[in-house]
Amino acid sequence: LVGDDAARFVHFGATSQDVVDTAAMLVAKRALALVLADTDGVAAACAELARSYRTTAAAGRTLLQQAVPITFGLRAASWLVLVLDARRSLRGVELAAQLGGAAGTLAPLGEHGPEVLRHYAAALELVEPTLAWHANRSRVAELGGALDLAAGTFAKIALDVALLSQPEVAEVAEGEGGGSSTMPQKRNPVGSTLARACAALARAQAQVLAAGVGQQELERAAGAWHAEWDALSGALAYAGGAAAAVRGVVEGLEVDAERMERNLYETVLAERLAFLLAERHGREAAHELLAKAAASGRPLREALAGELPDEELDEALDPTTYLGSAGAFVDRALTRYEEES
Amino acid sequence: LVGDDAARFVHFGATSQDVVDTAAMLVAKRALALVLADTDGVAAACAELARSYRTTAAAGRTLLQQAVPITFGLRAASWLVLVLDARRSLRGVELAAQLGGAAGTLAPLGEHGPEVLRHYAAALELVEPTLAWHANRSRVAELGGALDLAAGTFAKIALDVALLSQPEVAEVAEGEGGGSSTMPQKRNPVGSTLARACAALARAQAQVLAAGVGQQELERAAGAWHAEWDALSGALAYAGGAAAAVRGVVEGLEVDAERMERNLYETVLAERLAFLLAERHGREAAHELLAKAAASGRPLREALAGELPDEELDEALDPTTYLGSAGAFVDRALTRYEEES
Amino acid sequence: LVGDDAARFVHFGATSQDVVDTAAMLVAKRALALVLADTDGVAAACAELARSYRTTAAAGRTLLQQAVPITFGLRAASWLVLVLDARRSLRGVELAAQLGGAAGTLAPLGEHGPEVLRHYAAALELVEPTLAWHANRSRVAELGGALDLAAGTFAKIALDVALLSQPEVAEVAEGEGGGSSTMPQKRNPVGSTLARACAALARAQAQVLAAGVGQQELERAAGAWHAEWDALSGALAYAGGAAAAVRGVVEGLEVDAERMERNLYETVLAERLAFLLAERHGREAAHELLAKAAASGRPLREALAGELPDEELDEALDPTTYLGSAGAFVDRALTRYEEES
Amino acid sequence: LVGDDAARFVHFGATSQDVVDTAAMLVAKRALALVLADTDGVAAACAELARSYRTTAAAGRTLLQQAVPITFGLRAASWLVLVLDARRSLRGVELAAQLGGAAGTLAPLGEHGPEVLRHYAAALELVEPTLAWHANRSRVAELGGALDLAAGTFAKIALDVALLSQPEVAEVAEGEGGGSSTMPQKRNPVGSTLARACAALARAQAQVLAAGVGQQELERAAGAWHAEWDALSGALAYAGGAAAAVRGVVEGLEVDAERMERNLYETVLAERLAFLLAERHGREAAHELLAKAAASGRPLREALAGELPDEELDEALDPTTYLGSAGAFVDRALTRYEEES
Repeated sequence: LVGDDAARFVHFGATSQDVVDTAAMLVAKRALALVLADTDGVAAACAELARSYRTTAAAGRTLLQQAVPITFGLRAASWLVLVLDARRSLRGVELAAQLGGAAGTLAPLGEHGPEVLRHYAAALELVEPTLAWHANRSRVAELGGALDLAAGTFAKIALDVALLSQPEVAEVAEGEGGGSSTMPQKRNPVGSTLARACAALARAQAQVLAAGVGQQELERAAGAWHAEWDALSGALAYAGGAAAAVRGVVEGLEVDAERMERNLYETVLAERLAFLLAERHGREAAHELLAKAAASGRPLREALAGELPDEELDEALDPTTYLGSAGAFVDRALTRYEEES
Repeated sequence: LVGDDAARFVHFGATSQDVVDTAAMLVAKRALALVLADTDGVAAACAELARSYRTTAAAGRTLLQQAVPITFGLRAASWLVLVLDARRSLRGVELAAQLGGAAGTLAPLGEHGPEVLRHYAAALELVEPTLAWHANRSRVAELGGALDLAAGTFAKIALDVALLSQPEVAEVAEGEGGGSSTMPQKRNPVGSTLARACAALARAQAQVLAAGVGQQELERAAGAWHAEWDALSGALAYAGGAAAAVRGVVEGLEVDAERMERNLYETVLAERLAFLLAERHGREAAHELLAKAAASGRPLREALAGELPDEELDEALDPTTYLGSAGAFVDRALTRYEEES
Repeated sequence: LVGDDAARFVHFGATSQDVVDTAAMLVAKRALALVLADTDGVAAACAELARSYRTTAAAGRTLLQQAVPITFGLRAASWLVLVLDARRSLRGVELAAQLGGAAGTLAPLGEHGPEVLRHYAAALELVEPTLAWHANRSRVAELGGALDLAAGTFAKIALDVALLSQPEVAEVAEGEGGGSSTMPQKRNPVGSTLARACAALARAQAQVLAAGVGQQELERAAGAWHAEWDALSGALAYAGGAAAAVRGVVEGLEVDAERMERNLYETVLAERLAFLLAERHGREAAHELLAKAAASGRPLREALAGELPDEELDEALDPTTYLGSAGAFVDRALTRYEEES
Repeated sequence: LVGDDAARFVHFGATSQDVVDTAAMLVAKRALALVLADTDGVAAACAELARSYRTTAAAGRTLLQQAVPITFGLRAASWLVLVLDARRSLRGVELAAQLGGAAGTLAPLGEHGPEVLRHYAAALELVEPTLAWHANRSRVAELGGALDLAAGTFAKIALDVALLSQPEVAEVAEGEGGGSSTMPQKRNPVGSTLARACAALARAQAQVLAAGVGQQELERAAGAWHAEWDALSGALAYAGGAAAAVRGVVEGLEVDAERMERNLYETVLAERLAFLLAERHGREAAHELLAKAAASGRPLREALAGELPDEELDEALDPTTYLGSAGAFVDRALTRYEEES
């Protein structure tokens, strides 16, 4: 294919692993670009959510229990920061050319080894390594690790979405949630489910790569290198799958700000009011008042008017008294996002 | 303990996880310094080996078979580059302060959250994070990953040393190899063995940290965070154990340059000579001549004098004809080592 | 310590690994008994829950969405079956004596090797292996695997409890849920959290054991065996931790059958009724009727009386029409429990 | 496809997971049969090696150092026992039918659930489970674990073969070892290499399955189940790959009994003789005598005749004095092999 003059230099000096490793890095480069594009999409959508819901109060949840109020914007900003961290790792991965010949000396090239390596790496737009890395696989493991962290990042967002989509919580819903022919009320978090499955599989591949680092016998390994082939393509594919799935999830996310407020009022803020009402009316009466207010379907502020001094009521329900620096933290995340984009 | 005035600000605004995470990062900082000190020691010893054995020819081995000649210096340079990569990862890890309060808003501090966070991080000499990272654990996983890669790096060196210490190869020996009371000929590669065991255990801990990233429910996780506690100290301890063990191994490594040459001559170079002798004397005679030369115990050059033209013999045994750019690659590794130290 | 006559036979014929492996199996035997005792406790409590709530209707949840009705007894029966499977695996683990001497021949014992091995195993009440298993570690990996599966089993129950304890679901609560000084409404699922953390750590240890099987060089390994020491004790300890934590959880579990019914009515059964009401009154009116019924706080059967023919209403709300073989399946699990106890 | 009458019962009562899980078990059954066939082949070949080399003395090697003598038959018997253990685990795996409907109650089948399940399982020749196991995945993890252990078993044999094939050891060679066009002396252990790579990949898949057990939310999981799909086929395929590769290795293994004896004499037995000669002639003279004997190329017994009393020499070199119960242990393994076949 190459033609007469050039043909005899094909594979000249290079060992098969030089060719396979370099090809793998070229493939990884293209695949990473796709993963990064979806990661950018996730970041953009999270930034948009952080901006849009910067002041939307919601219940913060720790150990799966309601804790103190946050904003949904802060939660999205927190996703954003995690995605920015993952993107930084992915961008920082060094994809190097491989050229060492049978055992790293590039013997057939005489003393021209380093020069040929330089041109070779430059022509392929890959990093020029210090030495051949036939048995130095931490750079591959690092790529796997970055893909794993990215996939884990997407899985965390997916987990949050799945939890917030539970019908009893119902604060968000996937735009393209899967229906069920036999259970029409269901709206399955299918994108989140897919992302979590992909992340589990990406992690397994990354573990093969990490485990291989210490199992490289001498100049080239008898097995640990060969296990990388499937593992690396798997890690790229599954991390990409997780990225694409979560991108779909966050870009199409339906956010029910009203339900967030209701959930918050029903638990976290009711707690505050119960405390104030009890001080004034006694515990039992306080309980009754709250129950009546809740059943009325009207905003708590309105339904409880008169039961507490206006200023106490205002303060108890004033977001600025319980949201701390949520807004400032959202802004920090957005600033970083803009700086890194 | 703190005293009257300050006492009421202890734990003020901070949640328990703020305290535990920050403490963990302070511990990690100190532990990392120890791991890095031993990593420096390994790098220095590998650099010294690379320098000392820059031109010592040895058999390169791929798939556990002898391949083409390399120098022992190149092998050590290859270890060095792997260690430099690991060190770069360890140095690049970002240890951040944690301060978010119950759900990341720092509500009790009103609008002063970011400012307090800044002072807090500065006072502790930790990185100031964009946001609280209660459920954003990729930074912990990244620390685990760097420790795992470092441990894997040490395990790879340990594997090579164990393989080269086999009595049938006998090119190196651990200076403090373990004896056996009942088998006096044994010289166990005990440091390498320890390093490999530590690396296997460090990897398991790192996997707990990596697996946790995607399992962080909402603002704080119900389990995945708690699993980090043992895993992080384990990862630090075992990676440190691997570093210390391999440092002992490479600092005290006994290198048998003569045996390297002999092994190389007996296989790789004998192959070359067999080919040349067969061309001149026929296959059978060539075989006999080589066997006689080997049995004579004299250098091949001397024992085969007269059987081949002097210039052919010289060329076949001249290292410059088969070591390619080994020396130049050793120098590249040493240059990088000096630049990064 | 042993006394003059016997002293010279201590360690006679045995290599250090014989002693360490045998000791490890004796330790494992005692530790397994503790894990099994807690596993028995978990099984008993699950059986009790299955029995007590055999007919308590609850919403089945798939992909974290409400699906069709089940009984809480069926869910507990499902936990029970998982625990019985785990127990069967734990009980099936074969703990063998180790005795092979330096390389498996028991050379110092002349031809008496097999006979001594038989007495040795019998005296220690351990299984007599076919051969020394110095480098045959699948039996240790199998123990690790059984502990991992048991821990995973406990983690699954813990996950379900944590999910059902969410305040928006509130169908169960841990009896000893952790409070929070600053957030009095919280009732953290602390036992479940602990169990999940332990399971993550047990799994990591089991992975070390599984990974070791293929890395045993010849008669005794240089590292893979040594990594087992910490991993095996860790696997036993963490699996035991998970067992004890979940035992506490299920033994003290507070079950809110009324809330289960309410959750079920509000979603799954409301769906059924909405369908029937819509057929009769049109969609909009149906919706209104249901909302009014829900707001009334009265049982749906009562609140909707007259809006649908009695028999239709009865049928729609009759558990026997939607619980299928739930009861029969609970009985199957209980029967198996009794047979295996 | 099914035809009018039957068509409406397709998928009747069953949920998609019922169909997918049952199909997966049917696939696993067929795939397991293939893995078991190759496992049988490996066992048969190991048994043959154990029988043929029952008395062939060889150096036992621990921590990659020569230890005491064994027989090659004992090493093969040890492989055999490991394979028999793996086969027992594979055979013991329970492949069950899945049928539970949307949430395990088989509601559409009314009270006929258990009966239909019985017929369904019987018709498919799968085990009838106590309950639906939609979210009880330890049975799948157990299958993965058995495949992982089998793959690890094959990897251990492959590692031993690769180590014994090193040119400096040269006690065995793969019959179909891979050549290298540029390095004619190489005989790569390609089957062993392939088996080790497959085992690393099988383990990763098995870890996905094991990790999934604790991550099954309520009646059906949002991700952990979906991750099983690729992981289970991967585990079957890679374990099968390892089995087939090692079968090729052990069936075609070339054993160099003479080289085994030589290696043993050069190190382990020379040690014995050095001790005896030193007692009689002093250390230095002993050393010289041994060197001369080795250089002579004649059997040690012959070359040293006269330097030690005949009976001492005979005893030192008499295998029956240093092989202990090697033969008896080989027979135990073969007996077990026959009993289990």
